[in-house]
Amino acid sequence: MAKDLRITFLLDFYGDMLTEKQREVVECYYNEDLSLAEIAEEKGITRQGVRDGIKRAEQQLLEMEERLGLAKRFRSVQEELTQICDHALQIEAENEKNGGDPVIRQNVESILRSAKKLTD
Amino acid sequence: MAKDLRITFLLDFYGDMLTEKQREVVECYYNEDLSLAEIAEEKGITRQGVRDGIKRAEQQLLEMEERLGLAKRFRSVQEELTQICDHALQIEAENEKNGGDPVIRQNVESILRSAKKLTD
Repeated sequence: MAKDLRITFLLDFYGDMLTEKQREVVECYYNEDLSLAEIAEEKGITRQGVRDGIKRAEQQLLEMEERLGLAKRFRSVQEELTQICDHALQIEAENEKNGGDPVIRQNVESILRSAKKLTD
Repeated sequence: MAKDLRITFLLDFYGDMLTEKQREVVECYYNEDLSLAEIAEEKGITRQGVRDGIKRAEQQLLEMEERLGLAKRFRSVQEELTQICDHALQIEAENEKNGGDPVIRQNVESILRSAKKLTD
């Protein structure tokens, strides 16, 4: 069974909409990297049961993203924030060349701090 | 029936998880500001039916936010972006005082453009 890498990302957004049991199984598989057999043993269900549960959960996560598109929306936020940081760093480099105005430096630091808060 | 102002905001995030019929009714009420009686007439259902439908949809939206917290997450993005714009404008003001370095000005403009894209 191929791991769908989008799932890890979607789990972060929509994981709490799954049932607790479903979420546990999917997280073991995607976040803790356990095998189907290991999860089966740990949860006391069959390997096929684990596989089916994961498939169903994956479908639900993908369907939620198709409907709501919130993960995509967040991804563009992350992309723009990377751009913002780049520009802030370019301002600071230019500022240092000009002798290092402290007001500009402080504001650049504040921008980087805000951006970092959102990407953490 | 008091309008819950959070609902308008939550509709933007989770509206597509409601059934089409539910979403229509809630949007008429919250986004188009129609009265219960007007919606009832337009949709050919009773006023009580409209009221119940809206109540149920509101509960679902609030429950989804309670589980996923994505609207809250987006709100903090918006707040930080406002901060980022403020700092960018302060850099530009200081830059103009110093004679207006064009590299700094261009990078400030790029930051403002990125931030605007995300708040639109």
